[in-house]
Amino acid sequence: MKSVYCSVITIGDELLIGQTIDTNSAWIAQQLNKIGIWVKRRVAVGDVKEDIMQALDQESEQSDLIIITGGLGPTADDITKPLLCEYFGSTLIQNKEILDHVTNLFSIRKRPMLDTNLKQAMVPDNCTILFNEVGTAAGMWFEKNKIVYISLPGVPFEMQHIMTERAISKLKSHFITPVILHRTLVTSGEGESFVANRLIDFEAKLPPYIKLAYLPKLGIVKLRLTASDIDTNEIDTYFHELKIILANITVADTDIELEEAIYNLLIKRNETLSIAESCTGGLLCSRITSIKGSSNIFKGGYVPYTIESKINVLGIDKMTIETHDVISEAVVVEMAEHCRKRMNSTYALSVSGHLEKQQGNTVVWIGISKEGKNLAKKMNVFYDREKNGVFVTNNALNLLRQFILHG
Amino acid sequence: MKSVYCSVITIGDELLIGQTIDTNSAWIAQQLNKIGIWVKRRVAVGDVKEDIMQALDQESEQSDLIIITGGLGPTADDITKPLLCEYFGSTLIQNKEILDHVTNLFSIRKRPMLDTNLKQAMVPDNCTILFNEVGTAAGMWFEKNKIVYISLPGVPFEMQHIMTERAISKLKSHFITPVILHRTLVTSGEGESFVANRLIDFEAKLPPYIKLAYLPKLGIVKLRLTASDIDTNEIDTYFHELKIILANITVADTDIELEEAIYNLLIKRNETLSIAESCTGGLLCSRITSIKGSSNIFKGGYVPYTIESKINVLGIDKMTIETHDVISEAVVVEMAEHCRKRMNSTYALSVSGHLEKQQGNTVVWIGISKEGKNLAKKMNVFYDREKNGVFVTNNALNLLRQFILHG
Repeated sequence: MKSVYCSVITIGDELLIGQTIDTNSAWIAQQLNKIGIWVKRRVAVGDVKEDIMQALDQESEQSDLIIITGGLGPTADDITKPLLCEYFGSTLIQNKEILDHVTNLFSIRKRPMLDTNLKQAMVPDNCTILFNEVGTAAGMWFEKNKIVYISLPGVPFEMQHIMTERAISKLKSHFITPVILHRTLVTSGEGESFVANRLIDFEAKLPPYIKLAYLPKLGIVKLRLTASDIDTNEIDTYFHELKIILANITVADTDIELEEAIYNLLIKRNETLSIAESCTGGLLCSRITSIKGSSNIFKGGYVPYTIESKINVLGIDKMTIETHDVISEAVVVEMAEHCRKRMNSTYALSVSGHLEKQQGNTVVWIGISKEGKNLAKKMNVFYDREKNGVFVTNNALNLLRQFILHG
Repeated sequence: MKSVYCSVITIGDELLIGQTIDTNSAWIAQQLNKIGIWVKRRVAVGDVKEDIMQALDQESEQSDLIIITGGLGPTADDITKPLLCEYFGSTLIQNKEILDHVTNLFSIRKRPMLDTNLKQAMVPDNCTILFNEVGTAAGMWFEKNKIVYISLPGVPFEMQHIMTERAISKLKSHFITPVILHRTLVTSGEGESFVANRLIDFEAKLPPYIKLAYLPKLGIVKLRLTASDIDTNEIDTYFHELKIILANITVADTDIELEEAIYNLLIKRNETLSIAESCTGGLLCSRITSIKGSSNIFKGGYVPYTIESKINVLGIDKMTIETHDVISEAVVVEMAEHCRKRMNSTYALSVSGHLEKQQGNTVVWIGISKEGKNLAKKMNVFYDREKNGVFVTNNALNLLRQFILHG
């Protein structure tokens, strides 16, 4: 079966001067993959007419589908719509449905309607409108020389809404696509090159049409097998072997995050968690609470950022801090134990350390408490403040996951 | 002066299937901008030889500098280095300095050295090595037909290290570049189209060589003036006018985040903060603690995620919750007041609400407490769970900022 290739073009100076990070392209790629469309190239260009035109021409030479995001907002720096009219030979006409919708949106939000908002109801006459319930900029579907062009607003949740509610089903009926299979194994506890070393024999016998990719993140390595138009059994056989080789470091055999693995464990066991985190300053709590339904397993947290608050708020013994230092096994164990009792949870996880390098490496202590059993582990951090926060968070979550499983 | 244009090519299937979000391109663009180099295009391609070759050819036609990231790791799916050898007609040779460095790195981290790691010391013979102190994959600087090509590893902190320590100074001496001026005004409290409406006259008289861009984020709109090779006074005059027009919603006249604005205010006033956040689940604390030096102004936080923990840990009166509901003015005021007293801080900020839409819009209450004065504000959220978290966090931080300034 012929593959269907897509190019994603993102428009906006803010992407090229680095003021905005492009999350749209990744999201679009994920959705298209599910329906068997490969993103072959992603291109970002500025708000410059010739550059956008050139990108449209270039991508039209190699892709069957071109998705354009950005440049549809109500402000003057948005030049995409007139440009699309020129490219597709369209005339702007007023769309009654969009006009009513935009008017209604402003009345619900009790904000006055502006002239710039009215412009949003003007659309090219030769496109199919992909209606945008959650915003004012409609999506547009053009066809030219058998290529499909979809223009979407750059605001992520509006783009996502139009893709999910309008574009995906239309793409599915327009293109005949092969099935793309992905299998993802999430591991934690070993670096990329150590995992790779364990997989030398496995990789050698992998057939060329099944690709293995390594996706390392701070403290996590994801392994992904990908193949197109093959039997499910075949990829599953290799994936099963991969799971056996890496069993001791496996977090999950689907593409989930550590917090989801912990949530799933706790829900199944009907157990609960609380957190007392110092140096990670809220990162651990926010990772757990990012999960929908987390209030079923998460009682709450403390962020005792100063020594004063560790003593006054969490009741850590001043003597423990003075004797052992605030970054010590004794303190994280006491933090976890007090947190668990006060929050009335099955487990408590605690962290104390420095995220900024002082002399050479930096020490962080992680503690876990359960009735009748406490655990502490020391780790070193190597990166900058921001990365160390994520690295420590991932290590703490993985230690907790192992503790829940194996005690 | 002739502009210097750059194309950034990122390599990796993980970018095209959406498993990884590309943060490297934005970071690279920021750094190049500072030294007067414009990123004209960003292109992402998969681990496919022909696609990478085509991208190199295409970008060579329009850019003076091409930066390639990704595909240099120790694992088998990394194909960039042999491909670069082919493109630049190089032979791989062993580099003694890199070999010693890689060996040393593994001995410090007490990990065994693997064959795959040794491969990292093999480099093309016709490039200048950009040494990588923090990892095993070196950067490479090639020149061909007066175009500069820099190949960097995809791991963000390694890429950043090589750029900062090696590439930037070499680029500065290689290219003669114009000065690119940016002025950024950060606002909060009004949506993009409302800000645009206030700037109609301002935009009309802005000369064509000064560009105004709108950068909206949930609860924040940044306005950026950009010009190349003009007098500083001229852009500053327009920027001054912009500040006057938007004075009532201005957070800062440099490109900082709300948490930095709050940090700066509190440091100057020698005051402190604590936080009690329910629905934002750690996001507020982590935003504040993301600032280096935050322990000077931040005492600590509570994440009382359940009603039980609000009562037991933060001492909220059960009657207040039963009478007024857990999402109410009375509860957030009590949360802020208790938090401030227990944490012994000048201000306390509190939040209680739902981040998931239930019927239609969702209500969130924000509270602030200072000795002798409490404040509460109700807001509605419109987005999904993740975006609502950021939206509420930004609104809460802006309310706190205004409260600190104006009481």
